[in-house]
Amino acid sequence: MQEPYRLTASQALQLIQANKLTVEAYAQSLLSRIESRDATVHAWAYLNRELVLEQARQLDKIPIEKRGPLHGIPIGIKDVIYTKDMPTQHNSPLFKDSHVSVDAASVAILRAAGALIFGKTTTTEFAATTIGSPTINPHSSPPSTPRTPGGSSSGSGAAVADYQVPLALGTQTGGSIIRPGSFNGVYAMKPTWGAISREGQKVYSLILDTVGFYARSVEDLGVLGGVLGLKDDDDDDGGVSDRKEAGVEGVAGLKFGIVKTCVWPRAEEGTVSAMQKAEEILKRHGAIVEEVDLPDEFDNMPDWHAKIMAAAGRTTFLAEYRIDKSQIHESLVGHVENVNGATRAEQLAAFDGIAILRPRIDEIAGRYAALVTPSIPGEAPLGIEGTGSAAFNSMWTALHTPVVNIPGFQGENGMPVGVSLVAPRFRDQHLLSVAKEVGDIFEKEGGWTSAL
Amino acid sequence: MQEPYRLTASQALQLIQANKLTVEAYAQSLLSRIESRDATVHAWAYLNRELVLEQARQLDKIPIEKRGPLHGIPIGIKDVIYTKDMPTQHNSPLFKDSHVSVDAASVAILRAAGALIFGKTTTTEFAATTIGSPTINPHSSPPSTPRTPGGSSSGSGAAVADYQVPLALGTQTGGSIIRPGSFNGVYAMKPTWGAISREGQKVYSLILDTVGFYARSVEDLGVLGGVLGLKDDDDDDGGVSDRKEAGVEGVAGLKFGIVKTCVWPRAEEGTVSAMQKAEEILKRHGAIVEEVDLPDEFDNMPDWHAKIMAAAGRTTFLAEYRIDKSQIHESLVGHVENVNGATRAEQLAAFDGIAILRPRIDEIAGRYAALVTPSIPGEAPLGIEGTGSAAFNSMWTALHTPVVNIPGFQGENGMPVGVSLVAPRFRDQHLLSVAKEVGDIFEKEGGWTSAL
Repeated sequence: MQEPYRLTASQALQLIQANKLTVEAYAQSLLSRIESRDATVHAWAYLNRELVLEQARQLDKIPIEKRGPLHGIPIGIKDVIYTKDMPTQHNSPLFKDSHVSVDAASVAILRAAGALIFGKTTTTEFAATTIGSPTINPHSSPPSTPRTPGGSSSGSGAAVADYQVPLALGTQTGGSIIRPGSFNGVYAMKPTWGAISREGQKVYSLILDTVGFYARSVEDLGVLGGVLGLKDDDDDDGGVSDRKEAGVEGVAGLKFGIVKTCVWPRAEEGTVSAMQKAEEILKRHGAIVEEVDLPDEFDNMPDWHAKIMAAAGRTTFLAEYRIDKSQIHESLVGHVENVNGATRAEQLAAFDGIAILRPRIDEIAGRYAALVTPSIPGEAPLGIEGTGSAAFNSMWTALHTPVVNIPGFQGENGMPVGVSLVAPRFRDQHLLSVAKEVGDIFEKEGGWTSAL
Repeated sequence: MQEPYRLTASQALQLIQANKLTVEAYAQSLLSRIESRDATVHAWAYLNRELVLEQARQLDKIPIEKRGPLHGIPIGIKDVIYTKDMPTQHNSPLFKDSHVSVDAASVAILRAAGALIFGKTTTTEFAATTIGSPTINPHSSPPSTPRTPGGSSSGSGAAVADYQVPLALGTQTGGSIIRPGSFNGVYAMKPTWGAISREGQKVYSLILDTVGFYARSVEDLGVLGGVLGLKDDDDDDGGVSDRKEAGVEGVAGLKFGIVKTCVWPRAEEGTVSAMQKAEEILKRHGAIVEEVDLPDEFDNMPDWHAKIMAAAGRTTFLAEYRIDKSQIHESLVGHVENVNGATRAEQLAAFDGIAILRPRIDEIAGRYAALVTPSIPGEAPLGIEGTGSAAFNSMWTALHTPVVNIPGFQGENGMPVGVSLVAPRFRDQHLLSVAKEVGDIFEKEGGWTSAL
C-alpha cells in the first residue's frame, strides 16, 4: 500500500470501511507528512496534533454500521470558518486566539458525517485582502523561488496539493476558491450560491460569499458535495450516465462553450495555452466545442462586482473599524470610509444589474454540458506577498453559478494552470458529472502532473 | 424626575451626559421594573442582574470626554444574535446554554459606542417558526386575556413596550421586526437589507434576514440607526428640513402613497380603521395622499417570498437536521426534506422575479415622502401559542426597502395597531425624517396610548 497520506478521500474511505486502515493510522501518516513539510509550506493557522489523534481514536471506536459517509476523513478548515474545538483567527490581530464554541453549519454537517476536523488553514485577513499569508505554493518549494498559493483560501489549496490533507474547505467572494485551486494544481469547487449554508463564517459580502472545497479528485468533490447537500432538481447529469449506459465514453458528443469573457486581454501565456489545449483535447475526444460571445451587458460584471464588494465592505467591517481601525488592513478601512465615494445609487445599479444577468447566464450555460473559461490569468506569480488576480472568477461568483477548477495544464515555468467549468445555478451535480469526464482527459493529456 | 425606566434613550443620554443620572441608577431602575413585571411578561431569555450592574459601574467610570454616542444606554438583544458575555440559545434545545464568545457585528458596534448590552430577549425557535415563546403582550397583562407579542422578535418588542429597556435589537425574515412593533405599540425599524451587518446572528435566509430595532420614539430609532451606520447617499431627508427652515411644519405638503397590496383582503377591523385614520390625519395636516396600485407583478410577492424562504430553510437547517432532527421543529424538518417538493427552477424564478421588482418599487416609492401600508392584519391575536401573520411584511422584507412601524392606532379590543412607512432602498435616514413628522401626529391623534 502507498503511504496513506497520498490517498484520495474516496480511496481512504474504502480502506477504512474495509478495516484495512484505521483513522488513527491515516491521521498519523498525514501528521508525519505535515511535520516534514510544514516548515516550508506553512499551510496551517492552527493544528493540534493531540486533538487530531484523540478525535481519530474516538472515530475508530465507532462500530462500522454507525459510521457516517465521511467517517474518518480528514478535512482542513479555512480559518474564517468556526470550529467549536479550535480557534478561529481570521488572520487578524483582533481575533488572535479567538475561540468560538460553535461549529459553522458546514463544519457541523461534516462532523455529523464522521469527518475528522483536522485543523485550520491559512487565509488572508478576513478572506478580504490580497495580502498573502506565510503560505507558499508547494509546487514552488525550495530550491525554486517561492510563489503564492493564491488566496484567500491559501492554506486549503496548498495543504490539499501538498498531500497534507485530502480535503479542505474554502470560501470565495472574488476568486478565493478557484484561484488557489488553479495555482496549486488541485480540483476546487465553488458551488451555487446558497446551496450550502455559509452560517458561522466571516462575512464579507452576503450576496457573494460562497463556501466551497478542494480535493485531488472529482470523485472526492462529489463525496463532499453530496454530504454538504448539493442537489439538482433531478438526477440530470447532462446525459453523461445515459451515454455511458449506451456505451458512449467520456466527453464524446457533449457540447462545450468556450467563454473568454471581457477580461481575456489579461490572460497570460499559461492560460492562453491551457484554453487552447483544453479545446483541442475536448475535440480530440469527440466533444463539440464552440466559442460563446456573451452579450455586451456582461462586460459590466467586473465593475459591478467590485462595486458590490466595496459596498458590502462598507457595512461588514464597520464593527472592526469601530473596535480598532488601526488593527485592520487599510483597504478595509477604505471600504468603511467609502474612500472611492461610491454612491448608494451606483451600488444598487450594480446589485440589480447583476441580478438581471443571472437567469441569462443560466440560459446560455444551459445550452452546453458546461462552459469552459479561464480560472486565472496564468500560473502563480512569484513571491508570497500578493495572492494574484480574481479577474476571471469574480463574474461567476456574482452570477452564483457553480464552478469547478480542473487542473492539468502548465504555465511557462512549469507551474500548474487550471481551467474552469461552469454550469447554470443549482446544476452542481450535473457539473460534477461533466467535471469527472473532463478531468480524466485534462489530467492525462494537459501536460502537467504534480511532482510532489 | 420621572422614574428613569420611563425615559427614552435620547432623554437618558442627555441626563447621563449632564451627570444627572448614573448608568448604574438607570440600570437599577430598569432592573426594578423588570423585577416587578417579568413574572407576567417573560420578555427575557437571559438576564444577569450582576453582569448588568457591573457593566453599568464600569461605564460610569469612563470620563465624559471618552464616552461613546450610546454611553450607558441599555439595549436588549434578540436571542439569535451573538453576545460575547451571555449565552445565545435561539430558543432551541440544541443550543441550550450555548455560549459564543464573540459579539455579532451589530452588538460589537453598539458596545464600542458605549451601549449597555442588557440581556437576551425571547425569540421563536431560530427566529424561524411562528410558535410563540412564553412572552405575553404587555398590553394584555392580567386581568386581560393574554395575547401574543408577535414574533419572532417577541421579547424585544414586549420589553421596549413594557419600559423594561429603551431599545432592543430584532431580526426580520418575514415580518419579525414590524409585526411585534405593531402588536406592542412601539416604533420599529427594518432598515434596508445590507445596510447593517447581520454577521453573528442565526441565518434563516441570506437574501431576506435583516437586523433592525425597537424604540419608543423616532428620535431613538435615529440615534441607534446612526450608530449602526445607516447612511443615505446624501443628506436628503425628503425636503423635511428645508421645509422647516422655510417655516413649513410637520407633514404639510408632503406626498404619501397608500399601498394596500394584494393581501388587503386579510386586513381586519383594526387595520382597516388604522389605514383610514392614517389617511385622514395626514390630509388634515396638509399632506397630499393618493392611493397607489402596484403593478400586477407585485401580486406574486407573497408566493415568491414563501418559496425563497422555504428554499433557504432547506439549506440553512441541514446542519441541525443532521445533528438531531428530533430536536428541531417539524416545519424546519419539512424545509430540509423539501416536503412541498419545490423545485430549484421555482426557487430561482422567485429569486430572480423579486430582484426585478426591487428597482421598480424604488422608483414608485421615490415619488412619495413615504408609502403608507399596513403593518399587520390587525391587533395581536388572543393566546401566545402563535405569533400572528407576516402577510403584510414579507413583501417589503424581500424587496429590501426600509420600513418603520408607527404606533398610535387601536383595534376593536383596544390593543395597539401600527401602520408602516416604506421608502426606497438606502433612504433609511430620509424615512426616519418622515417617520418623525408622521409619528408626532399619529401618536397624538390616532386614538391609542399605552396604559403601561
